[in-house]
Amino acid sequence: MAKPLPVSPLASPLPALGTVRGVRLGAVAAGIRYQGRTDLVVAEFDAGTTVGGVFTRSKCPGAPVDWSRTALKGGLARALVVNAGNANVFTGKAGIETCRATAESEASLAGCPATEVFLASTGVIGEVLPVERITAALPALHASLTENGWEAAARGIMTTDTFPKAAVRKTEIDGVAVTIQGIAKGSGMIAPDMATMLSFVATDAALPAPVVQAMLSSGTIHSFNAITVDSDTSTSDMVLLFATGKAGNQAVSSVDDPRLASFRTALNDLLLDLALMVVRDGEGATKQIRVRVTGAVSDQSARIVAKAIADSPLVKTAIAGEDANWGRVVMAVGKCGEPADRDLLAVAIGGVTIASEGTVVEGYDETPVVAHMKGQDIDIDVDLGLGDGQSTVWTCDLTHGYIDINGSYRS
Amino acid sequence: MAKPLPVSPLASPLPALGTVRGVRLGAVAAGIRYQGRTDLVVAEFDAGTTVGGVFTRSKCPGAPVDWSRTALKGGLARALVVNAGNANVFTGKAGIETCRATAESEASLAGCPATEVFLASTGVIGEVLPVERITAALPALHASLTENGWEAAARGIMTTDTFPKAAVRKTEIDGVAVTIQGIAKGSGMIAPDMATMLSFVATDAALPAPVVQAMLSSGTIHSFNAITVDSDTSTSDMVLLFATGKAGNQAVSSVDDPRLASFRTALNDLLLDLALMVVRDGEGATKQIRVRVTGAVSDQSARIVAKAIADSPLVKTAIAGEDANWGRVVMAVGKCGEPADRDLLAVAIGGVTIASEGTVVEGYDETPVVAHMKGQDIDIDVDLGLGDGQSTVWTCDLTHGYIDINGSYRS
Repeated sequence: MAKPLPVSPLASPLPALGTVRGVRLGAVAAGIRYQGRTDLVVAEFDAGTTVGGVFTRSKCPGAPVDWSRTALKGGLARALVVNAGNANVFTGKAGIETCRATAESEASLAGCPATEVFLASTGVIGEVLPVERITAALPALHASLTENGWEAAARGIMTTDTFPKAAVRKTEIDGVAVTIQGIAKGSGMIAPDMATMLSFVATDAALPAPVVQAMLSSGTIHSFNAITVDSDTSTSDMVLLFATGKAGNQAVSSVDDPRLASFRTALNDLLLDLALMVVRDGEGATKQIRVRVTGAVSDQSARIVAKAIADSPLVKTAIAGEDANWGRVVMAVGKCGEPADRDLLAVAIGGVTIASEGTVVEGYDETPVVAHMKGQDIDIDVDLGLGDGQSTVWTCDLTHGYIDINGSYRS
Repeated sequence: MAKPLPVSPLASPLPALGTVRGVRLGAVAAGIRYQGRTDLVVAEFDAGTTVGGVFTRSKCPGAPVDWSRTALKGGLARALVVNAGNANVFTGKAGIETCRATAESEASLAGCPATEVFLASTGVIGEVLPVERITAALPALHASLTENGWEAAARGIMTTDTFPKAAVRKTEIDGVAVTIQGIAKGSGMIAPDMATMLSFVATDAALPAPVVQAMLSSGTIHSFNAITVDSDTSTSDMVLLFATGKAGNQAVSSVDDPRLASFRTALNDLLLDLALMVVRDGEGATKQIRVRVTGAVSDQSARIVAKAIADSPLVKTAIAGEDANWGRVVMAVGKCGEPADRDLLAVAIGGVTIASEGTVVEGYDETPVVAHMKGQDIDIDVDLGLGDGQSTVWTCDLTHGYIDINGSYRS
């Protein structure tokens, strides 16, 4: 970047981070693309750590996505290597070779098979990743890993992010205290479809890999998969959940076990927290927008309508201009092809019903809505009046900042 | 608008317009929303004029769309009334009443049934259209209609357009000279799906209504339906083609009649010309972009991939920044869910192949591509390497101008 981006006005403060037993992390400046900042992150996990993952649905995924998707089949993880600044996407055989060399290098340091090393990269597409800078940096980095390395890791994975993103929850399984802690990065190219930008979450809970996978998959539906910044889906999206088992809880063999209720709630809450941080760091964002659609013929239909509203450049620019332009919300409902009846539709902004049954509410007073639009958190509620389907999606506004950032990213 | 928008740097000059026998037009300042400019347009057609139309697929169409869709069933047209500044969308029973009153008022002036009067409106959504201003203005406007009113009509239907849009073609049917002339408006909320913003085309050819409809429907597929400015589809899109029959050509009963070959070519060319003017007046546009996708599994698949590229905010902002960021093209291909194989994909910009078979071309020299990016016409070619499907879509770049215009439209 030519100059550092200003920190998002919606930036979330970094919470007080603790440790997760069985996880050691660190970051180093490997000089992959950026100058004067960390860009290579390693996490090491104790033997026996299980893992679940969700990945981008892009048909052109990066080589690290292919690598980690394959590694996930074993259900076990001993290390994670993440670099920022170069996504290692569309790099052909060189990209595959980079993954292999990186994983083998870390595997020899961690004393594990390369197939238990997970990889993730984000940054520019189509440039060969200088793997020798990674393999040269790994030994010293590995030697410096610490249980207190979470903040360093959160900072080391950033690209166009303007603030580091982390969240922690304390919960229990069957009365045994467990911790869940995670980091994320992401700011643009955000419209995940069963995945997101990068997020890595660890817990000391003892959970078999299938349970980790099931809880992560369901947890991302209403968190990372319910956010959009610009409707563009990355080639590198990945969320991984590691479970070290160091908490000492009794083994829980089924995701439906009622003893997981608290853990599930805490995990879902943490995932949503991290996902909303990505929205709040949306490129150029000045407002966070919650779009809730009810009354759809199905939850899936509600999701499509909510995304159409959240992805509409006209809705997003109107909100940037603090204009409660509900007509553009109607436009977005109409364009997406899902069942809708103009004469049953109701639209509320900031909790105030503006339009219903095909026209503006009689005596509609814009005053409270105008005040709501000046705030940082905008609520749009649409009721389609057709059925019980509902969905909530989060996004941000579309401002000059987005154009500034993306008209000059590579320079 | 707070102040007039600067004229698009891509503005097309208005061609020398002629007349179409059997068509009289005019425009007047009815004070519907704008001050100091025309905003109400009427066209009157000689008895026996046939008509075809395509309309927005929005599930929340405006009342004038409903009206004209119904009127089209008769296949005959005697008048068209268009207003700018208020779309008469989401206006409930009042909007329906406005349509009825407008059509009846014009019908009494034209001496025809109200069902042969076509209506179209664009502008703000959700505000009741002051119908009394229209009905008050119609008698004087009707009295002033002239065969030379085409430019006035082109200007009178503009909203956020920065230049008037018109095109003319001279052709023949079975050796008899015929004229096709049309106007269009549109700048934002452009992602037509079987329709577009507003465009009205007239010919003096003698063609039965089913032939007019068939030629228009097929002609819009590769013109108005192949453009996108911002992925947002209007509630008011409409293209109408009127055929007055005054040219005196022999009746042609089938759309497949070989005597229509020249006419079809001329019509399709005119429709594309008008559609590209809409792209060239895309809100904030500084560059016109042609996206051609070949090698897809089907034409339909190619169309979806091309639209994904053309609608991607990241692709569009990169082009605004004159950055040949082909990685974002790969991203857009990957995200849209259509069959694609990273390792077969080829991307060319400005005719220079940058990437093929999953990686950048060896020895790729960016110099000619950098020069191409500085121009106003950007060509992106993607070959998927899978089959024979192909499609071409046109769009424009995404700039600060788009944010300026849409963050303050209603103010």
